[in-house]
Amino acid sequence: MAKSKMFGKDVVTTQELSVEEIENILALAVKMKANRYGEPYNSLLAFKTFIMFFYNPSLRTRQSFEAAATELGGHAQFIEPKAMRLKSVKKGVEVAGETIHDAAKVMARFAVGIGIRILETSVDNYGDGNKILREYAKYADVPIINMADDIYHPCQGLADVMGMREHNNNKPTKGKTLVQTWAKGALARSYCSVHESLLLNSRLGVNVKLAYPDDNYALPENIVEQAKKNAKASGGTFEIVKGDPKAAYEGADYVYSRNWFGKDFYEIGKEAEIKRASSDKYKDWICDEDKMKTANPGAKFIHPMPVDEDAEVTREVNRGPRSIVLDIAENRLHVQKAIMALTMSDKL
Amino acid sequence: MAKSKMFGKDVVTTQELSVEEIENILALAVKMKANRYGEPYNSLLAFKTFIMFFYNPSLRTRQSFEAAATELGGHAQFIEPKAMRLKSVKKGVEVAGETIHDAAKVMARFAVGIGIRILETSVDNYGDGNKILREYAKYADVPIINMADDIYHPCQGLADVMGMREHNNNKPTKGKTLVQTWAKGALARSYCSVHESLLLNSRLGVNVKLAYPDDNYALPENIVEQAKKNAKASGGTFEIVKGDPKAAYEGADYVYSRNWFGKDFYEIGKEAEIKRASSDKYKDWICDEDKMKTANPGAKFIHPMPVDEDAEVTREVNRGPRSIVLDIAENRLHVQKAIMALTMSDKL
Amino acid sequence: MAKSKMFGKDVVTTQELSVEEIENILALAVKMKANRYGEPYNSLLAFKTFIMFFYNPSLRTRQSFEAAATELGGHAQFIEPKAMRLKSVKKGVEVAGETIHDAAKVMARFAVGIGIRILETSVDNYGDGNKILREYAKYADVPIINMADDIYHPCQGLADVMGMREHNNNKPTKGKTLVQTWAKGALARSYCSVHESLLLNSRLGVNVKLAYPDDNYALPENIVEQAKKNAKASGGTFEIVKGDPKAAYEGADYVYSRNWFGKDFYEIGKEAEIKRASSDKYKDWICDEDKMKTANPGAKFIHPMPVDEDAEVTREVNRGPRSIVLDIAENRLHVQKAIMALTMSDKL
Repeated sequence: MAKSKMFGKDVVTTQELSVEEIENILALAVKMKANRYGEPYNSLLAFKTFIMFFYNPSLRTRQSFEAAATELGGHAQFIEPKAMRLKSVKKGVEVAGETIHDAAKVMARFAVGIGIRILETSVDNYGDGNKILREYAKYADVPIINMADDIYHPCQGLADVMGMREHNNNKPTKGKTLVQTWAKGALARSYCSVHESLLLNSRLGVNVKLAYPDDNYALPENIVEQAKKNAKASGGTFEIVKGDPKAAYEGADYVYSRNWFGKDFYEIGKEAEIKRASSDKYKDWICDEDKMKTANPGAKFIHPMPVDEDAEVTREVNRGPRSIVLDIAENRLHVQKAIMALTMSDKL
Repeated sequence: MAKSKMFGKDVVTTQELSVEEIENILALAVKMKANRYGEPYNSLLAFKTFIMFFYNPSLRTRQSFEAAATELGGHAQFIEPKAMRLKSVKKGVEVAGETIHDAAKVMARFAVGIGIRILETSVDNYGDGNKILREYAKYADVPIINMADDIYHPCQGLADVMGMREHNNNKPTKGKTLVQTWAKGALARSYCSVHESLLLNSRLGVNVKLAYPDDNYALPENIVEQAKKNAKASGGTFEIVKGDPKAAYEGADYVYSRNWFGKDFYEIGKEAEIKRASSDKYKDWICDEDKMKTANPGAKFIHPMPVDEDAEVTREVNRGPRSIVLDIAENRLHVQKAIMALTMSDKL
Repeated sequence: MAKSKMFGKDVVTTQELSVEEIENILALAVKMKANRYGEPYNSLLAFKTFIMFFYNPSLRTRQSFEAAATELGGHAQFIEPKAMRLKSVKKGVEVAGETIHDAAKVMARFAVGIGIRILETSVDNYGDGNKILREYAKYADVPIINMADDIYHPCQGLADVMGMREHNNNKPTKGKTLVQTWAKGALARSYCSVHESLLLNSRLGVNVKLAYPDDNYALPENIVEQAKKNAKASGGTFEIVKGDPKAAYEGADYVYSRNWFGKDFYEIGKEAEIKRASSDKYKDWICDEDKMKTANPGAKFIHPMPVDEDAEVTREVNRGPRSIVLDIAENRLHVQKAIMALTMSDKL
């Protein structure tokens, strides 16, 4: 009966964890994957409650966190704040209700940890989702786990890295090359998975190439600046390849092709973004066999799923031998179990 | 620690199980009912996740599957695909999203089995629900359990038979007579429970009389043809009684009176169907004491519930000593536990 | 393996429990709080299902009951009757569906207990929610626990008392003084928590002062009459202080400041009620430091949460040392565990 050094810690982004903490999570996740339902892991959260708090619905995140709690012997509650009367300001109008202070404090009485998901579509401005999440973290007396906000997605980043290592003979990916490329599609996707990948892989010494068609699909400057700093510190490289959908593939060991919305998304809205990102102008921004051939032999296709098949990537690649998307999806479960165990269990 | 011969098997309809498999499920369900919360059953799915995937909501099905998972030591997740971005075609328009291939493959990473419910109101044409369910079964690497589709409902059929036997001194019902009769009502009910009853009882040597008022309420030809073949093979009889709400009751040991929608439902829609089935024309299509008197002494009233009291059956019969509907409702739990144990547990 | 004397008992209001039963619940809750996840409590409902049946959504109630079931080794199902086809009459029109008789009888086959929440906004007239809850209690063969109806809220009342005692050196509150005061606010709040507090505290010998601005905010006569009778029997006092937002505070040991809707709510509706209760006329009906200074030294602020901060109570008081609202919120969990164990477990 003991607690890890991470006991009680919030997990907002891997950027705010030490490399040692990141490695501890990944090492435990690997052990848990090898011994999925067995002791001692299956009683680490016995009889305990983890609250999943979904400002935005999500299937994958819910399924993996709920299974994680079950496999640790506990239970995850699926809660939607829309069922609550929360004090808030919506488009300038104050809505009466409970403060985040009180909501966080009470939930911490019932649960040993709280996951929060809050994306761009739940807030008015970029970063507000992360701010709200940090407000819960400020007041809750139990760990807050970021289940994806409008900036970060630590569990996805860790699952990516775990999968990339599994397909690198279980070795670290330092010195390998990751292409993180924008893709067309009709889903106006969030930044958070992409941001986390840039930040975490640059941190771990991976050479990162970020590709997108034009400045409107550039990512927020502070994220890019941080990734550059990370690369410098870790001995990796960070490069931006603009305008050419294929150029970045050369020398890639991992290709991460995924849509994200443009800078003007908060003004133009979802419909206009989807129309643009599906237009002919971007028809070549898809990961296909042809482009993959310019990557290194054995290069892998990665993606946080759900995949928008035949938009972000062809069926051939997505379902082919290069694709490790299912392993990465499964790894969400394992890294989340590891995070929950390290931050919430007193039986480690 | 062992697996049954059914381990890994999908359960789409009892028609696709062998009689031996059917008997194995029923035998295990009887044992589980006698030892509801006890060992060894309460750890067969310990720490494991069963996903309940509801295209259509359902209370009874959810309650019984969720309790089943709990009683086997595991946990059932309640998931509604409407929270997902699934690739689909709705009224001719393509909706961007995840393929069933990917959704099935990922869920199989999190869960040891997946239940799917998809009724006529979720699809455009008769049989499309079953097709979608079979597509999940094709790709998922864990068993798919049919929690009711637009054609079949195996768990209901098995619960019916289990109840019929319990009220037949725990003996098989071969040679007994079942009246499966259409009833009036305002709920435009699905075919699946009725189909499964016809198919399964005819398979087990029960003499089946199918009664309905007119050709519009005839059931799909392939189901009726299959039931006739089943009867022939099992030594039972299969008879259709048309136009008379009482005639079929003569000689009945079990009366199953329930509404179902007409052939033209997919064109005319729910409202028109309800209006018609509630009209005076059909006022005598209700199971009542008077009709039950023409059945055999000791004849039982059965129904998959929820009962539309005073439409499908009078309160007197539904709540009277002839009614075994509650036992059958409870049996849903037990047969589902047995199916889950046989197809998903490695501890049998 | 034994059952308590309360095994099988419905819990509709503390008014219908004996003082001995109330004390047994509170005593067990105290023990459970001191040994939250430990034996023998963590297996009292092992593998068993508790159904939470929410006509009205609620976060706190759901979280605390769901955690309670988990901590007792069982599982709570979150069910919303709106997903059911229940027979009902809405504004004079009959809706086809299942009877409460059948729904209650079937749920009792799946679960060892059923919690029901049904507030004023789900029914047409005051008291109809309680009537419906009692109809479930009539037919269900397992205990019905009131998770708040339009009259009563037993779990909240018990959690209040448990918290009041904790902050009275763990001693009974007989002879102490409770001010139950109406407060302004924009949430048109239910009666049930307030009723239960009046009934239960008067029963336990607490001197109760009920304060409100005018006759429109008087509480139903039968509740007030019952509280007066309770006070007489227990040796306490019961007093009404009308029109002055501060006068009642003198001599108070506990101040319970909370909004409730006016007598004409069922006619005027929520919007008009909120407009009135937020108007300048009632601006002084808030619990603040200034008023608290006229209470006894060490007086505590109590509230069932969620708190409408800066309407019902100032942030200073709500988050200050006088506030015991979080302890009371946590106690919901413990008293509910105790109630569930006493009424549903066969292992006590």
